[in-house]
Amino acid sequence: MTDNTNMHLALIMNFSASPHTIGQWRLPRSFRGDSYLDASYWERIARTLERGCFDMLFFADSYTLHDRYQDSPDAAIRYAVQYPRLDPLTLVPMLSRVAPNLGFGVTGSTTFIPPYWLARNMATMDHLTEGRIAWNVVTSYSRSEAQNFGLDDIPEHDLRYDMADEYMQVCNKLWSSWDEDAIVMDREAGIYADPTKVHRIDHEGEFFKSRGPLCVPRSPQGKPVIIQAGASPRGLQFAAQHADVIFATPTASGGMAKHRAAINAALEAAGRSRDDVKVIWGITPVVGESEAEAKAKRDAIQANIHPEAALVLLSGHLNFDLSTLPDDVPLSDIEVSGVQAFARGQKMTAKQYAQRMAEGGNNLITGTATQVVDKMEALYTQGEGDGFMIVTHALPSSIDDFVDLVVPEMQRRGHFRSQYGSQQLRDRMFNETPNE
Amino acid sequence: MTDNTNMHLALIMNFSASPHTIGQWRLPRSFRGDSYLDASYWERIARTLERGCFDMLFFADSYTLHDRYQDSPDAAIRYAVQYPRLDPLTLVPMLSRVAPNLGFGVTGSTTFIPPYWLARNMATMDHLTEGRIAWNVVTSYSRSEAQNFGLDDIPEHDLRYDMADEYMQVCNKLWSSWDEDAIVMDREAGIYADPTKVHRIDHEGEFFKSRGPLCVPRSPQGKPVIIQAGASPRGLQFAAQHADVIFATPTASGGMAKHRAAINAALEAAGRSRDDVKVIWGITPVVGESEAEAKAKRDAIQANIHPEAALVLLSGHLNFDLSTLPDDVPLSDIEVSGVQAFARGQKMTAKQYAQRMAEGGNNLITGTATQVVDKMEALYTQGEGDGFMIVTHALPSSIDDFVDLVVPEMQRRGHFRSQYGSQQLRDRMFNETPNE
Repeated sequence: MTDNTNMHLALIMNFSASPHTIGQWRLPRSFRGDSYLDASYWERIARTLERGCFDMLFFADSYTLHDRYQDSPDAAIRYAVQYPRLDPLTLVPMLSRVAPNLGFGVTGSTTFIPPYWLARNMATMDHLTEGRIAWNVVTSYSRSEAQNFGLDDIPEHDLRYDMADEYMQVCNKLWSSWDEDAIVMDREAGIYADPTKVHRIDHEGEFFKSRGPLCVPRSPQGKPVIIQAGASPRGLQFAAQHADVIFATPTASGGMAKHRAAINAALEAAGRSRDDVKVIWGITPVVGESEAEAKAKRDAIQANIHPEAALVLLSGHLNFDLSTLPDDVPLSDIEVSGVQAFARGQKMTAKQYAQRMAEGGNNLITGTATQVVDKMEALYTQGEGDGFMIVTHALPSSIDDFVDLVVPEMQRRGHFRSQYGSQQLRDRMFNETPNE
Repeated sequence: MTDNTNMHLALIMNFSASPHTIGQWRLPRSFRGDSYLDASYWERIARTLERGCFDMLFFADSYTLHDRYQDSPDAAIRYAVQYPRLDPLTLVPMLSRVAPNLGFGVTGSTTFIPPYWLARNMATMDHLTEGRIAWNVVTSYSRSEAQNFGLDDIPEHDLRYDMADEYMQVCNKLWSSWDEDAIVMDREAGIYADPTKVHRIDHEGEFFKSRGPLCVPRSPQGKPVIIQAGASPRGLQFAAQHADVIFATPTASGGMAKHRAAINAALEAAGRSRDDVKVIWGITPVVGESEAEAKAKRDAIQANIHPEAALVLLSGHLNFDLSTLPDDVPLSDIEVSGVQAFARGQKMTAKQYAQRMAEGGNNLITGTATQVVDKMEALYTQGEGDGFMIVTHALPSSIDDFVDLVVPEMQRRGHFRSQYGSQQLRDRMFNETPNE
């Protein structure tokens, strides 16, 4: 396989008591349930990923909790279902200092944050990290999030993407408002910058107005690496237009091959080449030194997931209260907008599917490093991917397992770098020479 | 003097090529004019302040540039007049890791940032720093700042403070939305938190709506230390109601004694005691090992300030274009709203006063450490203060000078701590036992 000599690896986290996989703070050897409030907890994780030559540590985020289940926030609070959620924009600058090559992805919503503020924050982080920042562009989806920000409800789906399109325009203009050679620094004459090379943007659109210039000089990457994970037709259209990196989940569009075909079609419609975008698939590896050890770990993960916690998570993502249904209804029979698309091809009941999701999703891979990398090779081909987004469970041990066991096997087979090359994240993902 | 056995010290910076004093990037031994884009530049400064046992490193901020002069941004860009301005919220988390006791003040505007977002960011930072965060509440004042954020003009002065009053209500409710004992962490039962101890706030006011709860558990300080620097009557009323710390400048209200009396009256009107608030006065020390050396440093500072750069700064602060006036008009003769109050008691021309401001303000103290501390003692009494906000010029040398020369003299006289006591910033400023 000549294609998979340069896989990319990202790790997805929440700045939370509970990473993507639910309930794992209960494991006796995991970090204590409040360790995530300490910077040192995250520094240890960042150092491990740097040791493993990961491309990126990525923080998913939202500004609320999953409260669709029983129309109440109580269960999300009780079981820490991706909750609490602290602000990852404060954490990433810290971590960038202990992991000097690792890239960082942060999530920011185009529905709630003023574009001038976000563009400035990202440009600043790109400077301070010397070009290692990526922005995961989300449009948000939950009513309670909108209500935290003073709205009565979340704007309608396609409208949010129309707003996001214009939001990207504003940000791109702001990031280009300083020419690359604007800074002069003539100490003798006292001239710091050339004002003819710093431009107002005077954007006035349907949703946003901004004058500019940005008060930050052109950043090392010019703008952050743009990440998008939209899976709806409108979301894919947006991703195909703006993204450098697409995070893809196998459940989207009914399977990896179908979803990849949809991405390809969207890229073609946007007039972009398949090489312009890296597609990164989510997987949840449960790795052991033996198969039996891996299976035991998976049993422990499953045992930690309270069935109600799983339903809270899935109800949140579906924006539908699953407590109103009998336990044994197949997910594909639920006739609610959104659920049908989500459930396409899923033969499980809502309860079963919720459990699967709470374990970390459909691409759960349990086994030894050899077995995991075998499966990764197959998925890499099947999804025509450029790499993987690793979903974790026990912390820090599931990250240690991946870096200590799986990464060396990937390196042995020539799929992954053994040392960092490019300093900047976009260069690393697009211009780096594959390993021999 | 029994009163001044426990002075407090903060250092004011901008995340900029140019700190408060203008043009000092031109000094041959100063950091290069683009060093401020590197994290290590700031880490060096934070370590020095930690060595000097400072209470706090404080970042002033705004989201634009001074563009009133000649109704153009060009001169602010050309001379780097407190410009560029990067986002200090990204920098403070980094610095908190290399200076484990130092407190940090960050500026955030109640006019442009959604309160839920700001409350979450501050609570997160309070966790990650273990209780060392302060928020400088500003209402912003410039039209171009409003225009960057999509408004046509800045809301009227008193309206901004009415909005800020309600903004504080929203934040205070959000910061209290988790009871202190809400987190249970029962691994056996899988119960993370008690939902009866996490509360919606359902705020619905004149300017803001927010549902809550905050998605961040109660932070170490409960809420950040609140800093305010308002000097107008409405600003003082706001500060007296909400602030833990008031930053005061001697130009406000026509001199230190008058301004302190105005603060006292405002506190009384708000039903708060003088002990509830720490008043910190701005000073700009220019320190030498000899008087001659200090004077030479001051000459160099003055030589670096381009006269036009000084007018840019003052025009920005006055919200009035001083280029429209002859050079020799006394500041107190300018009949423009705002200027009169600002200029009260100033017998200088606008040009002279601009130069003074660009050097770092009225409390410029040039001399040896002994002379500087003598003057600080006098000002401490005169302003009935609790400490000083140090305005810098050459970087890093003016900070080194203060920490290496002035701090030991303060310690020798028993005015300042020799080691850190309390971990949290509010405790340090309010509950720490004075040095012997």
